[in-house]
Amino acid sequence: MFNFDFYNPTRIIFGKDRLESIEELVPAEATVLITFGGGSAKKSGLIDKIKTMLGNRKVYEFGGIEPNPRYETLVKAVEIVRSEKIDFILAVGGGSVIDGTKFITLASYYEGDSRELLKCGFAPMPVKQAIPFGVVLTLPATGSEMNNTAVISYEHAKYFFATELVFPKFSIVDPTITFTLPKTQVANGVVDAFVHVIEQYLTYPVAAKVQDRMSEGILQTLIEIGNTTVSETENYDARANHVWSATLALNGLIGAGVPQDWSTHFIGHELTSFFGIDHGQTLAIILPSLLAVRSKQKYSKLLQYAERVWHIENGSEEEKIDLAITKTREFFESLGVKNRLSEYGVGVDKIPVIIEQLKAHGMTEISETRDLTLDISRKILEGAM
Amino acid sequence: MFNFDFYNPTRIIFGKDRLESIEELVPAEATVLITFGGGSAKKSGLIDKIKTMLGNRKVYEFGGIEPNPRYETLVKAVEIVRSEKIDFILAVGGGSVIDGTKFITLASYYEGDSRELLKCGFAPMPVKQAIPFGVVLTLPATGSEMNNTAVISYEHAKYFFATELVFPKFSIVDPTITFTLPKTQVANGVVDAFVHVIEQYLTYPVAAKVQDRMSEGILQTLIEIGNTTVSETENYDARANHVWSATLALNGLIGAGVPQDWSTHFIGHELTSFFGIDHGQTLAIILPSLLAVRSKQKYSKLLQYAERVWHIENGSEEEKIDLAITKTREFFESLGVKNRLSEYGVGVDKIPVIIEQLKAHGMTEISETRDLTLDISRKILEGAM
Repeated sequence: MFNFDFYNPTRIIFGKDRLESIEELVPAEATVLITFGGGSAKKSGLIDKIKTMLGNRKVYEFGGIEPNPRYETLVKAVEIVRSEKIDFILAVGGGSVIDGTKFITLASYYEGDSRELLKCGFAPMPVKQAIPFGVVLTLPATGSEMNNTAVISYEHAKYFFATELVFPKFSIVDPTITFTLPKTQVANGVVDAFVHVIEQYLTYPVAAKVQDRMSEGILQTLIEIGNTTVSETENYDARANHVWSATLALNGLIGAGVPQDWSTHFIGHELTSFFGIDHGQTLAIILPSLLAVRSKQKYSKLLQYAERVWHIENGSEEEKIDLAITKTREFFESLGVKNRLSEYGVGVDKIPVIIEQLKAHGMTEISETRDLTLDISRKILEGAM
Repeated sequence: MFNFDFYNPTRIIFGKDRLESIEELVPAEATVLITFGGGSAKKSGLIDKIKTMLGNRKVYEFGGIEPNPRYETLVKAVEIVRSEKIDFILAVGGGSVIDGTKFITLASYYEGDSRELLKCGFAPMPVKQAIPFGVVLTLPATGSEMNNTAVISYEHAKYFFATELVFPKFSIVDPTITFTLPKTQVANGVVDAFVHVIEQYLTYPVAAKVQDRMSEGILQTLIEIGNTTVSETENYDARANHVWSATLALNGLIGAGVPQDWSTHFIGHELTSFFGIDHGQTLAIILPSLLAVRSKQKYSKLLQYAERVWHIENGSEEEKIDLAITKTREFFESLGVKNRLSEYGVGVDKIPVIIEQLKAHGMTEISETRDLTLDISRKILEGAM
């Protein structure tokens, strides 16, 4: 097991009818900005309900944060925070709204060009304070409601940063709020959570037995409830397990003390930036091919994955691994998530341009062993056709 | 899945050679009280090392916090905190030292009779502030290093309280610091962690699939590393998994959203208070008998436990359950932890006095279904002979 630090001070308020906690959790004297996305939170009446909970507090709204939230959009919210002296933000949405809000909370305190914040990655931020914020989660997928990271789009690229300043103060996670989501988004959310676990689990063994077991537990749960949470939109048990699994998949716990491989995300990000393919779909496209191409590097953990997650008992080790990869692909398909690049209208002729983008963004030696080169990325993309 | 709140702001610093983090984590201007137990931390040189890390800070020491820490001991530390204006405490020890320190941090701010704090249970505390404190963990067992609860002994009883005020600010969890522990304490620690998981898992099903999977993951890990962590005192991999499992077993995560049954602990506490049997040993005595006596109430989860944790595939449901209970008992035995009351010199003639104690402490309707009466406790004790 590697040495690790673990710290996660976000308060989770989970379950049915938890919205009223807002009254207590948002400071009584706060001037609040509610951030949200494309308008469904508004149309459904959720924003109005939240405003009622906020009582006499002064409330502003900022809607229109798009999927893969854009710098250009978010800086407009920063202007409102500054001009209206906002001192608490309530993000109502999924990963995009929450990630975007994390940027807003930091940029509001930053005097320089806030594009500099985008490039920080895991490095320390040139800002020491952020506007405190809470979350009302509407889409289970990214885990952003209980972590300290964000991905922001600017021009043709996605940028990542991480800082303890952007842990939400609280997140209200009510599975019933997600009942009205389109099936596509629910399915993408299952894939996203699944791949988050995989990227922290399917690397090489470091005798982190309890982390492995917990990762396997989340994967088995997602497999067990995946089809139900997509097809039975109001099945509380399935959705509750889906939502909590998605949060646990990326709150730092299963990744503590183990190697991590974010290659599927890195390659997937280019597909979103360049072709506008949904984030979850890009992961479903890349992961099965990546596992096949990297099966030697990941041999031991792939075998463990086959045996413990898919309960494959028969066949040679290689056959077990192959079958586990096939089952992974079939699981995504069963959710209705296509996992061939060609099915999204992207042909083999586009591979060079994707490789160019990876190169331009410094993704030349990725993975847990830093040896996934552009040549290997090309093979993965070819295998994903 | 039940509704739940989850909040745990303790910073975990895990791994080899992490003591130097103290320099950064303890406020630079703090006047520090180091609390510890029977003296092994002193003799081993650990306290001196820590004092070096604390540099120019003014440091006081309070040793002698006993296993099952006593109110009478702890109030002496409260006097030091007040007279020396201590504003940070560093607890160096296992669950007893940490639990005791939690009481000290609260009692130092309480103007009334601090015995009132002992009786709070889950009720709000009549104190709104606590001295901040950190932990250097020396014994993996109770999980107190990452939770907000404590058990304190006073006269012939154990008292429990829980409040967010007593989350440690940080806990340094270095498995190598535990290498010098006597085998008995290591073994008791494995049992303690194991039973913590069981009490949050082996109840009745509420479709909390991901919590179940995580609990099963911790149990499987403890079974896998139990013998090694006891017999190979310097096996880092085994001890690291033991230590981190013990923390995860009681940091609130696996218990979020599920019923909990603390009957084994409640009955066990009386055995410690009255006969001085080690806490972990009392759990090993009570649990197998309790599972047998309560197998109808716990039928569905016991079957799941048999199949998923012990991988029992053959036999009728009842046979699987019986075998799982036998395997649990054998696991404790394999660690060298005797699990018959008679093996600790307590005969069947003592059962009435234990029942009297349970009655005196209000333990008349316990368990997740509040129907474990004194009569059933008597049957459990008879089965534990």
